[in-house]
Amino acid sequence: MSFSVDPDASNTTGSKPKVDVPILKDLTIDNITENVHRINSQADDARLKYVLERLVSHMHDFARETRLSTKEWMAGIEFLTAVGKKCTDVRQEFILLSDTLGLSLLVDSIDHPKPPASTEGTVLGPYHTHDAQDKSAGTNISADPDGEPLLCLCTVKSTTGEPIPGAKIDVWETDSKGVYDVQYEDYSGEKPDGRAVLRSDDQGVFWYKAIVPVPYRIPNDGPVGVMLEKLKRHPWRPSHMHFMFEKEGFDHLITALYLRGDPYETSDAVFGVKESLIVDLGTVNAEQAKKYDIKEGSKLLTYDFVLVTDEDTKKLRDAEAMKAMKALGRDRMKILEGLPVPDVD
Amino acid sequence: MSFSVDPDASNTTGSKPKVDVPILKDLTIDNITENVHRINSQADDARLKYVLERLVSHMHDFARETRLSTKEWMAGIEFLTAVGKKCTDVRQEFILLSDTLGLSLLVDSIDHPKPPASTEGTVLGPYHTHDAQDKSAGTNISADPDGEPLLCLCTVKSTTGEPIPGAKIDVWETDSKGVYDVQYEDYSGEKPDGRAVLRSDDQGVFWYKAIVPVPYRIPNDGPVGVMLEKLKRHPWRPSHMHFMFEKEGFDHLITALYLRGDPYETSDAVFGVKESLIVDLGTVNAEQAKKYDIKEGSKLLTYDFVLVTDEDTKKLRDAEAMKAMKALGRDRMKILEGLPVPDVD
Repeated sequence: MSFSVDPDASNTTGSKPKVDVPILKDLTIDNITENVHRINSQADDARLKYVLERLVSHMHDFARETRLSTKEWMAGIEFLTAVGKKCTDVRQEFILLSDTLGLSLLVDSIDHPKPPASTEGTVLGPYHTHDAQDKSAGTNISADPDGEPLLCLCTVKSTTGEPIPGAKIDVWETDSKGVYDVQYEDYSGEKPDGRAVLRSDDQGVFWYKAIVPVPYRIPNDGPVGVMLEKLKRHPWRPSHMHFMFEKEGFDHLITALYLRGDPYETSDAVFGVKESLIVDLGTVNAEQAKKYDIKEGSKLLTYDFVLVTDEDTKKLRDAEAMKAMKALGRDRMKILEGLPVPDVD
Repeated sequence: MSFSVDPDASNTTGSKPKVDVPILKDLTIDNITENVHRINSQADDARLKYVLERLVSHMHDFARETRLSTKEWMAGIEFLTAVGKKCTDVRQEFILLSDTLGLSLLVDSIDHPKPPASTEGTVLGPYHTHDAQDKSAGTNISADPDGEPLLCLCTVKSTTGEPIPGAKIDVWETDSKGVYDVQYEDYSGEKPDGRAVLRSDDQGVFWYKAIVPVPYRIPNDGPVGVMLEKLKRHPWRPSHMHFMFEKEGFDHLITALYLRGDPYETSDAVFGVKESLIVDLGTVNAEQAKKYDIKEGSKLLTYDFVLVTDEDTKKLRDAEAMKAMKALGRDRMKILEGLPVPDVD
């Protein structure tokens, strides 16, 4: 039941490789999936083949299980097109879609498993940029005069409690109106605001000044906003500050801290809140005010971040992947560069 | 375990409705899916809720089963964005993606089930337009002097063999280079070529002149082309002519006829070929040449199309939907306006 697809197949001097592919004819609701798998299995890359196989299976099962109508399919095509059209250099509507359907948090959880003693990760969101400038300890990341001043005193350590010096730490937050710098029309990238790149010192300490985060709406003037409205979901995110840690030998940590008592603490539009990431803000005392050059009584955020080594992360990720494959009844899988692929060789 | 999401909830004079939603916190690989379902279940529309529930389940299962990495997720985001950016008024890259992954044929098969005695449907493709003009019988739909002349003599009947007069028939094909009119840069919509809208006469007959279809490549200069290349799939479609039938009381028929012996007959890039839609071209004899004003010996295409009534289609579609729900173990479903929804009332 296979057939050489090369139109020059009869030309025995032809130099094109002949590939055996299934006969693609008379495809039906019941047999199309296996045939799409077969034609896609010509790819060289084992991982690509596996990902495509799962993608096509789920997409087809989705259509079969819903009995998706042509009208609904077309609405889907139009929705995805509108999402694509909404994307710009500073707005990623597909990430927003992924965030609001819980996919982003799920992928982060799979890719960056955390042992109990470490800092949990959460969604990156669409507003991280590479415009933030390197700043020294004590910098004020916010130029917003209307924000409520906040002193941030943090440390970064390993799971064994050792300080991690020289970690690169990206921090970013909105202004007091709940708007990121990139969301302003006149944003050029030259004057980033509400963001900085910091380094931890020999004691693993990093500290800076910022403003108290406020809740904000994810951009809901696009197709994702329309979707949320149809689902009767609000577009709010609870007050938070983003953090991204990079340090050789340690797993990349993308996380955020949330303020306790926020009205959206338990209904985050992008599912990012974790109890371990909720903080109670303190108050700057006289000694701290003097030491850190900030008004006594200002709000104070303290947090000790714990990074996991690449090695521990890899072990945990591989073990969880194999466990998941077993639970799925997929016994003949192996882990290749940290990702499961069929073990067919 | 539920919580009022309205930030004005404490304002008892507030007019906004209070909605009970789940507590969205500490979401993990294992519990995020059910929680996304719960927050989405606030929607009013039962069908939207069911479709979203299946979509989110499949999307999340896809990520869990592949252990999708952040890097792969980002590649997916970038791919979808590129697909959206490639879409224009005359090019629909998402339809092309759906076509090349077998989804389009599947959805058409689900939505337009055909009893054995009727003409099978196939993919619409992205090149149907509304620019085609109403033409009388005998029109030559192609202005391409390089095409091989083709006389098309067709009928359209019901499954009981009755001629269907007054059916609206859209026909469209490429020129002799394998290019649709809309694919030319200077296309304005004012001079459609290779397409027409015809009507069947009292005997259910419709006839016209065209050119012999040729194989062509689906547009592979965009992200879908890149995907096909990675999958080592060719972008060719076998020679075919498209047909779309509309007639009150009958199910919309989207189909195409394929030429037997085409090098891509069994490897169509969009999975559209069905044995019942493959035709052997004949030759115009002397009598036909005179009657239809075309050179004797020209190629001849004859086909008798059979439409299914709306009523028969609906019955068959509903029965197949209920059968599919049973096979899925989803017993508590009902059919609402032709589509399955949970039977929860």
